[in-house]
Amino acid sequence: VSNIQYQQVVVPDGVIDLGVGQPNHALLPFEHVRQAAPSLLDDGPESLQYGAEWGDGHHRVALAEHLSVGYGVPIAPEHLFSTNGTSQALDMVCTVMSVPGDVVIVEDPTYFLAFQIFRDHGLDIRTAPMDGEGIDVAAVVRIVTDVRAAGGRVAFVYVVPAFHNPTSITMSQRRRDDLAAAASAIDVPVLADEVYHLLRHAPGAMPLPMSAYVERAPVVSLGTFSKILAPGLRLGWIHAAPSRLEPFAASGLIVSGGGLNPISSGLATAMIRTGRQAEHLAFVQATLGRRCAAMVAALRATCSDRVSFDVPDGGYFIWLRLPAGISGTQAREAGRREGVDVRHGALFSAVGAPDDHLRLSFAYYDEPDIVEGVRRLARALSSLGT
Amino acid sequence: VSNIQYQQVVVPDGVIDLGVGQPNHALLPFEHVRQAAPSLLDDGPESLQYGAEWGDGHHRVALAEHLSVGYGVPIAPEHLFSTNGTSQALDMVCTVMSVPGDVVIVEDPTYFLAFQIFRDHGLDIRTAPMDGEGIDVAAVVRIVTDVRAAGGRVAFVYVVPAFHNPTSITMSQRRRDDLAAAASAIDVPVLADEVYHLLRHAPGAMPLPMSAYVERAPVVSLGTFSKILAPGLRLGWIHAAPSRLEPFAASGLIVSGGGLNPISSGLATAMIRTGRQAEHLAFVQATLGRRCAAMVAALRATCSDRVSFDVPDGGYFIWLRLPAGISGTQAREAGRREGVDVRHGALFSAVGAPDDHLRLSFAYYDEPDIVEGVRRLARALSSLGT
Repeated sequence: VSNIQYQQVVVPDGVIDLGVGQPNHALLPFEHVRQAAPSLLDDGPESLQYGAEWGDGHHRVALAEHLSVGYGVPIAPEHLFSTNGTSQALDMVCTVMSVPGDVVIVEDPTYFLAFQIFRDHGLDIRTAPMDGEGIDVAAVVRIVTDVRAAGGRVAFVYVVPAFHNPTSITMSQRRRDDLAAAASAIDVPVLADEVYHLLRHAPGAMPLPMSAYVERAPVVSLGTFSKILAPGLRLGWIHAAPSRLEPFAASGLIVSGGGLNPISSGLATAMIRTGRQAEHLAFVQATLGRRCAAMVAALRATCSDRVSFDVPDGGYFIWLRLPAGISGTQAREAGRREGVDVRHGALFSAVGAPDDHLRLSFAYYDEPDIVEGVRRLARALSSLGT
Repeated sequence: VSNIQYQQVVVPDGVIDLGVGQPNHALLPFEHVRQAAPSLLDDGPESLQYGAEWGDGHHRVALAEHLSVGYGVPIAPEHLFSTNGTSQALDMVCTVMSVPGDVVIVEDPTYFLAFQIFRDHGLDIRTAPMDGEGIDVAAVVRIVTDVRAAGGRVAFVYVVPAFHNPTSITMSQRRRDDLAAAASAIDVPVLADEVYHLLRHAPGAMPLPMSAYVERAPVVSLGTFSKILAPGLRLGWIHAAPSRLEPFAASGLIVSGGGLNPISSGLATAMIRTGRQAEHLAFVQATLGRRCAAMVAALRATCSDRVSFDVPDGGYFIWLRLPAGISGTQAREAGRREGVDVRHGALFSAVGAPDDHLRLSFAYYDEPDIVEGVRRLARALSSLGT
């Protein structure tokens, strides 16, 4: 196989991969970007220069205004640090906020591709369980106590508070309060991966993002344009108190290379200023809402006697509980024989939790393919005799 | 001071900072980029998607053609891995090719901002001296032997082979052969920071880049569009044998976030295809050549009795030897009193080598400011009584 490829995910012909947790091309702002492209240098040649360490000032001001609206709380541009997206932010958080051998506490299950980033930096992953309101805060405190008693150090607690990956659970406001209070009490930072927060597609209100706690608790929030505009920009942000961001701005990577992605910042700034960003986000929310409804309806029509799930209010994912006796791995293999792929639950556990779920994404296909994919999955589950 | 800034370097009013090792705005392809911007999506919506792990295929093919011409040796696109520039590449090399506690061997002096990147990753920096042909290869072998005898590991040898920062020395072809042969013999990778290789501005030929050795020796070469197009793109490349690049493509950062900077890749690809990249590089070479000549003439006219230096054939820097009894730190302080700044030699040593040089850059100012800056420096040196 040649290593010359044109995008990260290439689904084999004939397969519908309901596992892909990415927007498909129909969700990408192709025309908006083409029209905004000539504006990417509107703030002058600075966009072509080594960037300001914290990110371009014009961009941070525009982003703060956009987030203040979306989050429903005032966000100060001085509390934003530009990144190359959340994966790069996670990598940099490890470099700046941890040393090898530190413990990182994660939800079980959680975003599985974070595991390797943590392991690349020599971190020791421990897990706390979740319930319908989010992470078990008492369990977090117990782990921190145990690690410290053994002479270790906990670098941070990694959570996905909104439309959690893979469960789609949104942490309740009360649980957020508890987590922030506990983090202050035990003096361990909460690293909140809030990349789905703006992707509510059902009616109703969101709890405040963990971003709302950064001035009164040790909270570091990650966000990204990958989910609200386009992954190819490789542009995101860290939102935190300036005292927590200063070590990022002073890191070797930034002092040597300057701020991250000035050119993408210019494009995103132009998108925000012209209203294209808000317009595209509304389009993404509406489209995801329709796709989610199509997946829910198809699951109910074809396999409601076999599987159970909560209907998501936002985000990308449905977390499908399998019938007793069928593992995620078995279901995935059966699916592949029917021309559909998914992600098996075991992937999302750092500690080998029971493999009794599938993660389905409704972000990567239009409704007809989603419906057909679910039909194939239903056939696969039938073939397993449930 | 607000943390809202618009570019990395802000020189105080009234100061000419001949220390800044960056292109100024006159060297940035503002009009080219403005005209190429609408073409950044010419290869389709893939530029907005999560990118292929190794970098966009179209971009790697275009870059390989550009480098084959510039380097004078055929470069295969399959041997290129896209980065966010050389600082990010150095950071990632540390993550992928080292573990904390490893030794990295660097030239003394060398690019000082690399030190913090290495230290951020827990590496132990050792130095090998240079002569007029480059790094002392026998010293490298001795250090490796000593480190191994003590139970340690050498992660890589970091060199700047062309128009070295800060000395402007270009490693001779014979020395490159020796370094590659020694690296093979001792099985330690050479990390060649070749960011200035394409910036020859005097007549004459370059030795082959270390890139020419990647198929027969453990060589990893770093390059960047920052020096030949624009730093703001945050786009560069690693050139190495595919077996050495596979661990990069499989790292947590890449598997989670996809390839680095698809959108900048699209812009750079458009610049290469239209000939704008070649045209701009020729402009950069010619402009740097004029600026270098202006700095050389000004130094000769104002302080040839006090300082000595080799005339660079390319790159950004003049490495100025100070009169006995005057340190770089003293000269820099005296310069600041006259309204000129520079970088003192001690910055570039990881081991506290004698502070008997200044690094002057001719990249950040047009000729009149370069001449005025040198005049101020000459006054400063006079004030020190030399």
